[in-house]
Amino acid sequence: MSPTPTATELAPALLVDSSPFLKAIVQQIRANDAYGTYRNWADELLLKPYIVSKADKKDIPLEDEIDPLTKSRILAFYRAIAYCIEQETGSLAQVVIDLNHEGFGWALVFAGRLLLVSKTLRDAQRFGFPSLEKMSAEGEKLVQKGIELAKKYPEVGEL
Amino acid sequence: MSPTPTATELAPALLVDSSPFLKAIVQQIRANDAYGTYRNWADELLLKPYIVSKADKKDIPLEDEIDPLTKSRILAFYRAIAYCIEQETGSLAQVVIDLNHEGFGWALVFAGRLLLVSKTLRDAQRFGFPSLEKMSAEGEKLVQKGIELAKKYPEVGEL
Repeated sequence: MSPTPTATELAPALLVDSSPFLKAIVQQIRANDAYGTYRNWADELLLKPYIVSKADKKDIPLEDEIDPLTKSRILAFYRAIAYCIEQETGSLAQVVIDLNHEGFGWALVFAGRLLLVSKTLRDAQRFGFPSLEKMSAEGEKLVQKGIELAKKYPEVGEL
Repeated sequence: MSPTPTATELAPALLVDSSPFLKAIVQQIRANDAYGTYRNWADELLLKPYIVSKADKKDIPLEDEIDPLTKSRILAFYRAIAYCIEQETGSLAQVVIDLNHEGFGWALVFAGRLLLVSKTLRDAQRFGFPSLEKMSAEGEKLVQKGIELAKKYPEVGEL
């Protein structure tokens, strides 16, 4: 008899299905998968590199240039936020990530003249979250704040 | 007898003195001159690389990665705009330049949640102006528009 999957084993897949934000990141990753490398990968496997423990972070040197894969993960994270805000407000949102060689910089999401997300990034080489739940919560928080701003200042968002 | 300088020869120095925007760019360049390379250079000489004729532009290949010196000129241009807006409105403005390998991207100046300048850049390898007058006019236009927005939406600019 094969062992019954425990709650912990099932959790990631269920979590992705229940989080519009995590699904939006998966969508971003698949949209950029021009060669179909990830076609047969489960959603939760695509999100796995976003989970970086405290111990893992310590092992990533800050002296090195930021890894292009890390940069594309940061971009997909903020593009997913832009997408979720767009779905709710209907206004087109742009994403700009500006990082210097030391992994410091800005992540901006904007519509018209309104900054929906304005985050300073530091130690971007170590970008990641302790768990999918934490990532989902962080993303949803930024999405909600963005929607709130877009609704409060619609005129600025449409300039 | 040495020849009397003509109006055209005098123009650049006079122009820089009369344009707060051009003076702000010079200030940016001197602020970044850690080794004093430009200490004895006249202002108009520092601004010379910003003047790129149509013919010069054609000679700059778009296939190459953007020259770091060109990138720093773009940054100084938009930092000067941020500085001039700050002088008028008193609110701190940030500058973000995001360029991809093909020289496409964004130049953003923002205060709080308000985008004071939002410009798409293309062919950034060829960044430049036909004359100092044109550069001054373009900069002043962006400064005025930024000040106008900051005054119209003070609440968003202070978020």
